[in-house]
Amino acid sequence: MSDHKYHFDVKMSCSGCSNAVNRVLNKLDGVKNVDISLEKQTVDVVTSNALGYDTVLQTISKTGKQVIGGNVVE
Amino acid sequence: MSDHKYHFDVKMSCSGCSNAVNRVLNKLDGVKNVDISLEKQTVDVVTSNALGYDTVLQTISKTGKQVIGGNVVE
Repeated sequence: MSDHKYHFDVKMSCSGCSNAVNRVLNKLDGVKNVDISLEKQTVDVVTSNALGYDTVLQTISKTGKQVIGGNVVE
Repeated sequence: MSDHKYHFDVKMSCSGCSNAVNRVLNKLDGVKNVDISLEKQTVDVVTSNALGYDTVLQTISKTGKQVIGGNVVE
């Protein structure tokens, strides 16, 4: 069972925004690593095999931030 | 059946933060009005009778913003 990597492009305008996304993702079961760049407007998430892309996307959407795009990296 | 008014103190550092909170609350069934002040760090919500305080609080929490306090106004 291997990990997944998911990439998202998310509109974040300040460190308060990116911290909020970071906070909710780190609370999500199965998340192993979160790498957020405010400059690049990107959110990269490594998860255990059991945590699917849609669940991560939904969790980010619930922050109220606009998700411009996303994809499964591996 | 009368409306409810709920007040929350929420840490929001930019208009991106307050817009995110506004967005999720306006998507929530039963929300009639949302009044957010970035300056005062406040979120005031008017809901129909059916929408309880805890549900609104939970929705705000899922944005990843830190809720400092909250109360039922009426």
